Amino acid sequence: MKRFILILITAVAAVTALQAQPPERTANQDKYYVRRATHFDDLPVYRNDIIMLGNSLTDGAEWNELFRNPNVKNRGIIGDIVQGLYERMEPILQGQPRKIFILSGVNDVSHGVDGDSIGRVMEKLIVLIKERSPRTEIYLQSMLPFNTDVQMWKLLAGREQVVIDGNRAMEEVCKRQGVTWINLYPLFVDKNGKLREDLTNDGLHLLGPGYLIWRDAVINYVNDKGYHGKGHHGKGHPRKHHKPRRHRRF
Amino acid sequence: MKRFILILITAVAAVTALQAQPPERTANQDKYYVRRATHFDDLPVYRNDIIMLGNSLTDGAEWNELFRNPNVKNRGIIGDIVQGLYERMEPILQGQPRKIFILSGVNDVSHGVDGDSIGRVMEKLIVLIKERSPRTEIYLQSMLPFNTDVQMWKLLAGREQVVIDGNRAMEEVCKRQGVTWINLYPLFVDKNGKLREDLTNDGLHLLGPGYLIWRDAVINYVNDKGYHGKGHHGKGHPRKHHKPRRHRRF
Repeated sequence: MKRFILILITAVAAVTALQAQPPERTANQDKYYVRRATHFDDLPVYRNDIIMLGNSLTDGAEWNELFRNPNVKNRGIIGDIVQGLYERMEPILQGQPRKIFILSGVNDVSHGVDGDSIGRVMEKLIVLIKERSPRTEIYLQSMLPFNTDVQMWKLLAGREQVVIDGNRAMEEVCKRQGVTWINLYPLFVDKNGKLREDLTNDGLHLLGPGYLIWRDAVINYVNDKGYHGKGHHGKGHPRKHHKPRRHRRF
Repeated sequence: MKRFILILITAVAAVTALQAQPPERTANQDKYYVRRATHFDDLPVYRNDIIMLGNSLTDGAEWNELFRNPNVKNRGIIGDIVQGLYERMEPILQGQPRKIFILSGVNDVSHGVDGDSIGRVMEKLIVLIKERSPRTEIYLQSMLPFNTDVQMWKLLAGREQVVIDGNRAMEEVCKRQGVTWINLYPLFVDKNGKLREDLTNDGLHLLGPGYLIWRDAVINYVNDKGYHGKGHHGKGHPRKHHKPRRHRRF
């Protein structure tokens, strides 16, 4: 009996240690990823925070300034993939933030991943957030189009359809998981299915005006303070329509 | 007489237009520079703001979070040079910010610029800030060492002394211009004159713990709210010693 109890205690301790251990970061070996991720490890997240999570597109903007909201925090990393996000969620989830906005996938496309696979990894990420931080409202933003006329991205050439497929897969994930889908794609695409030339200087990343379009597309989701309040349609189904707030160009 | 007045009006209008025109951005042609600079053009700066101005080292951190101060704004651009800073000052100076912290120079070193030349361009930048925004307190931070053992940066190989020369030149500029010099170099250098290996994964950029050292080195300058108040030794000569404020690790 003593021996059994000892084994039981050891097993419980092992499981506890396993839970406390954040996942190893192996998917993204990029040195910039490691530097940003170790920096984010040092930055606490709080319950009122709004997390902008993603790749270079998210990394490139000063979101707290764009939204004039100090609770908005940049958790973008140039070159990151969806699994890379998954493996660095620990310091974010510990803070149980109010909202997380995700935009990712185009680097997976450039690595040859298909749309359905992008949807599956994204669903894994969303399930992780829901399990570990149930109060967090999740907003999944679509991938933007790219434009290989402006600059040739060899790894993206001919993969325009994968973005469309991936977006469709991610929209399905949102329905399944009760998460808000924000389709940015139509705001950035030209009539040839490419990223608008006036919004980019390399066919993939955004110039200043591109970030204003993105800001205007999501600001009502960011500023909604109705969470847990009247008119809210339940966790995971935040209101789709809001009164405009502090919604002006500058 | 009528004709003279017309010429006068035209001349005044021309001068006014010239003044309103920000300098053309020609020194740094990097596409990432153009994207970040056009983004910064859209972000207003206010009189209470504290601007972190620089290259990739500044770009890589979330300074408002590190300092827990929403008035702190990131104006770093990966790969930027001192002249690149100079040419994008317009939207910052328009806001007449409270403080500007500058760290730049190592990309100039990699372009073959010598220490004295770095000092001269930095002095031009500081004179511009003083002329256009006399109320702004300027803090010039030294270049950090680099370490070509960790990763070979061919353009930096053998140029360790240029950093030391450039820092000496910039310290002289600070004395001449009445600007606060913050010597970060000793905090990051090992006994062989190289960037400490534990603080970097590429010999040039900082891992998370490196940013905590930097933060701790400047936080008292950032948090000093004595400007225009008692105990301040006059514009351009901010207090060198302050009581520690909100100065804790997390």
